[in-house]
Amino acid sequence: MPAYSPYQPLPLADVPHWDFTTEVAIVGFGATGACAAIEAAEAGVRVMLFERSSGSGGASALSGGEIYIGGGTDAQIAAGFSDSVADFTAYLKLAGGPCVDEAKCDLYGAEALAHYQWLKDQGVPYRGNYLPGKVIEPTDDSTLIWSGSEAATPFRNHAKPAPRGHVIQHMGWGGGRPLVNILERRARDLGADIHVDARTVALITDNGRVAGLVVRIDNHDRFVRATRGVVLATGGFVFNEAMRRKYCPDTFRVNSPIGDKDDGIGIELGVSVGGDAIHMDQFFTTCPWTIPADQAHGVFVNVAGQRFINEDCYHGRVSRCAVDQPGGKVYLLLDSAHFSQPLDLAGITIAGTGNTWDEVEAELEMPAGTLSATMDVYNRHARDGHDPLFDKQPPMLVPLDQAPFVALELNFQTSYFSFFTLGGLKTTTRGEVLTRAGAPIPGLYAAGRCTSGLPAWGHGYSSGMSLADCTFFGRQAGIAAAQQ
Amino acid sequence: MPAYSPYQPLPLADVPHWDFTTEVAIVGFGATGACAAIEAAEAGVRVMLFERSSGSGGASALSGGEIYIGGGTDAQIAAGFSDSVADFTAYLKLAGGPCVDEAKCDLYGAEALAHYQWLKDQGVPYRGNYLPGKVIEPTDDSTLIWSGSEAATPFRNHAKPAPRGHVIQHMGWGGGRPLVNILERRARDLGADIHVDARTVALITDNGRVAGLVVRIDNHDRFVRATRGVVLATGGFVFNEAMRRKYCPDTFRVNSPIGDKDDGIGIELGVSVGGDAIHMDQFFTTCPWTIPADQAHGVFVNVAGQRFINEDCYHGRVSRCAVDQPGGKVYLLLDSAHFSQPLDLAGITIAGTGNTWDEVEAELEMPAGTLSATMDVYNRHARDGHDPLFDKQPPMLVPLDQAPFVALELNFQTSYFSFFTLGGLKTTTRGEVLTRAGAPIPGLYAAGRCTSGLPAWGHGYSSGMSLADCTFFGRQAGIAAAQQ
Repeated sequence: MPAYSPYQPLPLADVPHWDFTTEVAIVGFGATGACAAIEAAEAGVRVMLFERSSGSGGASALSGGEIYIGGGTDAQIAAGFSDSVADFTAYLKLAGGPCVDEAKCDLYGAEALAHYQWLKDQGVPYRGNYLPGKVIEPTDDSTLIWSGSEAATPFRNHAKPAPRGHVIQHMGWGGGRPLVNILERRARDLGADIHVDARTVALITDNGRVAGLVVRIDNHDRFVRATRGVVLATGGFVFNEAMRRKYCPDTFRVNSPIGDKDDGIGIELGVSVGGDAIHMDQFFTTCPWTIPADQAHGVFVNVAGQRFINEDCYHGRVSRCAVDQPGGKVYLLLDSAHFSQPLDLAGITIAGTGNTWDEVEAELEMPAGTLSATMDVYNRHARDGHDPLFDKQPPMLVPLDQAPFVALELNFQTSYFSFFTLGGLKTTTRGEVLTRAGAPIPGLYAAGRCTSGLPAWGHGYSSGMSLADCTFFGRQAGIAAAQQ
Repeated sequence: MPAYSPYQPLPLADVPHWDFTTEVAIVGFGATGACAAIEAAEAGVRVMLFERSSGSGGASALSGGEIYIGGGTDAQIAAGFSDSVADFTAYLKLAGGPCVDEAKCDLYGAEALAHYQWLKDQGVPYRGNYLPGKVIEPTDDSTLIWSGSEAATPFRNHAKPAPRGHVIQHMGWGGGRPLVNILERRARDLGADIHVDARTVALITDNGRVAGLVVRIDNHDRFVRATRGVVLATGGFVFNEAMRRKYCPDTFRVNSPIGDKDDGIGIELGVSVGGDAIHMDQFFTTCPWTIPADQAHGVFVNVAGQRFINEDCYHGRVSRCAVDQPGGKVYLLLDSAHFSQPLDLAGITIAGTGNTWDEVEAELEMPAGTLSATMDVYNRHARDGHDPLFDKQPPMLVPLDQAPFVALELNFQTSYFSFFTLGGLKTTTRGEVLTRAGAPIPGLYAAGRCTSGLPAWGHGYSSGMSLADCTFFGRQAGIAAAQQ
């Protein structure tokens, strides 16, 4: 039996027989694959979906089910926020930083309201209310939350802030699972033919056109003909250590990959037929330091006692900048008015305490005049409502001057720094996979975290950007494949 | 006429005729290509070399001709330094950081002394003396200089320091040109058939084996059969803005690409036949802030008035860390005992002065208690010979307390921050280009900056590491191709 490989497509002429024939074949059954399946099925073509796990979900089902949507949603309007497509799009572009895909930002910026309606049409429920404050995911069933750095510098200076995280109506954390369940139900109702425990091992090509898949099912290689196209929807490569070592070695500074078998197979499949993989060094990371919420008032310093970020940014942006700091750890400084016991899960420990910041500094074995000077400058200006160094804004900007004081340690290896990769295949807004020369590969589409999409830059990530990318561009890939 | 493309190999069956036949074909005539040609010719096989410029040189000829060599050279011993293979190898690995290729470090660490002799055997002259101090390139014809961060933390704690930059005997800067001239002469004397103004546009493959090249000469496509192998020696992609945008966008923070037509073609050719391109986000950058030499005693702060590095590191490491800082610029702080006019070329300007550090701080419009607190801590400890924050060492560690004081601005866009890329094809120590699955591609070899090699990590670069990589692994590629 020949060994099929994700690194080497199988020429159609060498396919021994066809086990399945469909019009659109989709690989991966997270939110991306489900949305691609819905759109392709709605377009009236036959759809088969192959998922290596025993059911739907992928990394999407491990998420909060939060989708980044702006431009004036019902929930935004009801809560009194006047968002615009222009501000929303500008924010998306800022969040993409040096890795931004402007065309994707422009399209999603213009279409997000319609996408929100589409999600509702699929049956995704939204309560419609606004939950103020700094939350990672709602602990109730609220809809609208601040889920990024919109109100923080520099973003606030270039795009009028509004909350844009839209969360499925679901009691407590973990809205990703019910979100995928709803999308799965829709895909099944529309007739998508879903195969689980079916691991894609290679693409099949016909003179440069992607024409199908080799799928391993029940320990047999099955040959799938896809007459219109193949959609890759397999996620990133956070669980592939060899890929991380070659393309994203800074992820070894942190410790808790999040995902569901995200082994980069979709990226390898795409590259095997000439696809271009870009921004492979980019990753998201976060440590849940804003829980309890009062701790969001804290000040971060590195091991030299220096601040490095306006702490009112999104928790993931702060965490990503923290991981850039030397010394393997950073400290979150709090006073007694804002300290409470950190979340157990976070693995955040108390590294030092004191009745003055000088005492904390000494307990952390920092030289006199480092952390204490930092806090002197910070408090002096915070009392006037200013942060001249990093422009942290009220209400997070408060003086930390109520003794006793505490320094919490966020250690990159022993605290919980979850992470996932952001680099992947370069695609058009229609989900076409591009070659390094910039040409679409006939018959091949991709979306979600096996592509570089809306959440292109680790330092600019905002909650809901990945699911926005997965659901919206998953749809585009399904539409484009069906039209082929 | 068909358009040949670096993105798409030409099947041998489609080659209309052969214009040239050789055993080893080499693409690119910098130090890498020259060394590959010498070794292949010395192995007794026919060698053709194709260079798109009108003569030899490439980026190598723009360099100082400095090669990183350790383990106990004549120059090291004569100057009283006892270097060892173990310390040298350990330093190479530290310098590779998270991107390190340990096998390459181990091999080069063990073979560098023999490589040094080989260079001499080719006719490269070395005066053999040691030039102390912090120099970028000798302004005389000296041999041995400190060219990295060997004596700086953290390197000094893991590998016994020794100077390892070995510079060709050549009066003044620019030893790269005479170095390449000598290697070119050797290659020609050995019978290498050299074609200039000859631009490689595609590889030719024969059932997965690289079998030749399509080369554009005099506006005609020429078909080159290479019966043993092709060696890619084309340099990095610093002059390809589209590649930088996709794979290395942080280079847009700086302004002065250095190289000679380094457009990434070798990387694209390698990837077109299944090669793996790794660490594509890595780049070297430097601003010549250690000239005049007294300025190397300075202290760097970012726009928040904070130090960020032990300034006794290699100038490129300091510069690379500088570019990580927010605000688009950093300041080099000096007192009157250590200031002199910066090098014109550097584009370094005076941003602030004062009779106290408080006055400098105010002139830079930094909040009171930031830069001044930084300098207070620094000076207090420097007087005792310590730097508790970053462990800068004497003799660079001196108090800066002789008024008046000055803050020089190194602006990432308007000062001279030269840069080149470090990511490229993944190769074995024999120069074999590897697929993403880790298998050598038959008939294809590569070395130098179209590969990821010894200088894999921008933050760990040391002068001479790239030419060490080019010359040594260029040789290995030539040997392996000839043996094929």
